[in-house]
Amino acid sequence: MNPTTLSRYSTPAALLDTARMQRNIDTMQSRLNALNVKLRPHVKTSKCVEVVRRQIDAGASGITVSTLKEAEQFFAAGIRDILYAVGMVAVKLPQAKALRDRGCDLKIIVDSVDAAQAVADFGRTQGHVLEVWLEVDTDGHRAGLKPDGGELIAVGRALHQGGMTLGGVMTHAGASYELNTPAALAAMAEQERSRCVLAAERLRAAGLPCANVSVGSTPTALSAQRLDGVTEVRAGVYVFHDLVMTNIGVARLDDLALSVLTTVIGHQKEKGWALVDAGWMAMSRDRGTQKQMHDYGYGQVCDVNGVPVEGYIVDSANQEHGIVARAGCVDGDIAGRFPVGTQLRILPNHACATAAQFAEYVAVDSASGGAVAIWPRFGGW
Amino acid sequence: MNPTTLSRYSTPAALLDTARMQRNIDTMQSRLNALNVKLRPHVKTSKCVEVVRRQIDAGASGITVSTLKEAEQFFAAGIRDILYAVGMVAVKLPQAKALRDRGCDLKIIVDSVDAAQAVADFGRTQGHVLEVWLEVDTDGHRAGLKPDGGELIAVGRALHQGGMTLGGVMTHAGASYELNTPAALAAMAEQERSRCVLAAERLRAAGLPCANVSVGSTPTALSAQRLDGVTEVRAGVYVFHDLVMTNIGVARLDDLALSVLTTVIGHQKEKGWALVDAGWMAMSRDRGTQKQMHDYGYGQVCDVNGVPVEGYIVDSANQEHGIVARAGCVDGDIAGRFPVGTQLRILPNHACATAAQFAEYVAVDSASGGAVAIWPRFGGW
Repeated sequence: MNPTTLSRYSTPAALLDTARMQRNIDTMQSRLNALNVKLRPHVKTSKCVEVVRRQIDAGASGITVSTLKEAEQFFAAGIRDILYAVGMVAVKLPQAKALRDRGCDLKIIVDSVDAAQAVADFGRTQGHVLEVWLEVDTDGHRAGLKPDGGELIAVGRALHQGGMTLGGVMTHAGASYELNTPAALAAMAEQERSRCVLAAERLRAAGLPCANVSVGSTPTALSAQRLDGVTEVRAGVYVFHDLVMTNIGVARLDDLALSVLTTVIGHQKEKGWALVDAGWMAMSRDRGTQKQMHDYGYGQVCDVNGVPVEGYIVDSANQEHGIVARAGCVDGDIAGRFPVGTQLRILPNHACATAAQFAEYVAVDSASGGAVAIWPRFGGW
Repeated sequence: MNPTTLSRYSTPAALLDTARMQRNIDTMQSRLNALNVKLRPHVKTSKCVEVVRRQIDAGASGITVSTLKEAEQFFAAGIRDILYAVGMVAVKLPQAKALRDRGCDLKIIVDSVDAAQAVADFGRTQGHVLEVWLEVDTDGHRAGLKPDGGELIAVGRALHQGGMTLGGVMTHAGASYELNTPAALAAMAEQERSRCVLAAERLRAAGLPCANVSVGSTPTALSAQRLDGVTEVRAGVYVFHDLVMTNIGVARLDDLALSVLTTVIGHQKEKGWALVDAGWMAMSRDRGTQKQMHDYGYGQVCDVNGVPVEGYIVDSANQEHGIVARAGCVDGDIAGRFPVGTQLRILPNHACATAAQFAEYVAVDSASGGAVAIWPRFGGW
């Protein structure tokens, strides 16, 4: 990564270290290969065809999406096997059917009898069989049916008897984001696995089909010791990693592939502040490390080559201004350390949120001597 | 606003109540007309030509921008008088000059001798006279020169003697966001005014030109009792207002013009949760009300007509999931109150941040019987 090359780019810019990204992709794929499960990456992190192509090339089986727009964009890029992992509602069914009509193998999810009934009614009216998976709650943090509750079977029956394809069960142990020891993470991964498998077994015992058992979050995917009964794992942020992941303990600072390139625009010397042109519009308002062991403010400061400058963070942010300071003390020589015009890189708290602030990545391939490419990404719904 | 009309729109969507917006525009313009100063609205809030056109039609004089992309977009839409209110650095000067070469009356700002020197050097080399204003720090919250310090005069001299046009001084009392009484806000407005005027007077006393004296933030603009010596006021978020402004005390809930239209996708009944499809990707991660008198979580819940449902907020948010709950207690009938498929509107903490998550506004004109138009907005740099 040649600073001279980067000085051509207007700041702020979303910089992607493709060598680090490839290492993250390979690490996750090898791990899940060894555990004998498929990997269905969640593409909400990158929303970028160039990134997802590398995940598929490394061995991923299909993708997970968080919006139907992601499904449309990646189907247009040639990916057929897509799981839409947000609860389906009636108003979005025509858009889902349109994708399936064009040949997309889109799977949708529900977690209530009401939603299941709406899907079955729509399918019957349209003469179209949709494939539906059941969302299972394995950690109490968000949506999903209780794996040991009666409603799980009722929802399965409503779909199966309603003529839809009951394709499997899926869960996401988002509570893993609150942990930070290998033992606690492994235990959460086992909880996610065992409860999701329990749901699948109960459906099968009730005479219902359940071919797929899908679990995952980046922390549990990188911590699971066994995945018996699971067919696939979903994970998203591992592709870039971020400061939240380093605090959880599943990434090191030098795994972080995404950073924001920024320029020093001024100082408040007696306060020890350097002002940079990466405010919250560039970094996002995500303060994911606020309650973690190490609070990085709005991000960790690195030099233009990506080497962390120990102790310096983006301490606060306005829309287009970031305030760089030494955490916990005043640097009396901040203007000498970071003169006006200096380029820096900022590692983000949460890669999904920071990436979403940009329309493209400046992808830098350090393996091939720093060649730079612009990779578009999309947003919206 | 007809719910039947809105049910055609896929959620989440950024809904704009144009009658409320017009009232906000008229209120601010009348106030500043009465105080005998010009209004130069900050367009970073809307980034939308349709919105800014209404501000100009109401009497605004020029605009303020936070990025050169905003300058380019609004210049293309016919607006010439533009102040770029983020400290200029050398790397962005060619882009600024290109705009001026095409006829844009773009003004830039600096707050250090280093930056002033870089501008003067560039101007001399290019044979181009740039108009530069000095950023003044009147509240200690961000960038700017001390109004009573020696560097102010040194920076003015560097520009004037370097052949640039010294156009004026500008300040932004962002510290007003931490206040919430009319008396404190009026005092902050007077502090912003008096210190910025002091800077202008000191420049003039030193034999330097200073035609423009520009102050502003939405809270101070709506609280100033007099603006003697000021030529113009800048303000941004007043055009939409938001929950942060209601906590500060300069807006009421029914002034809020921007909301996010969302759909209920499921429940966790025993927790009193309704899950909606407006997560942080729609609302933004902004938690601006977290430390204010009334913490709205990720937003105030309203029915589809925009009537607030007292006590219900988006309590937490994942990327595409919002968790709606009654603040401070469990609603045992959440599924009865908000069934799957129900459309709701969420009022945002911070309109600039929430609007930035969308590529367009669904503009609803309640004055003309609910006619709906799509108004594009842009993002990026």
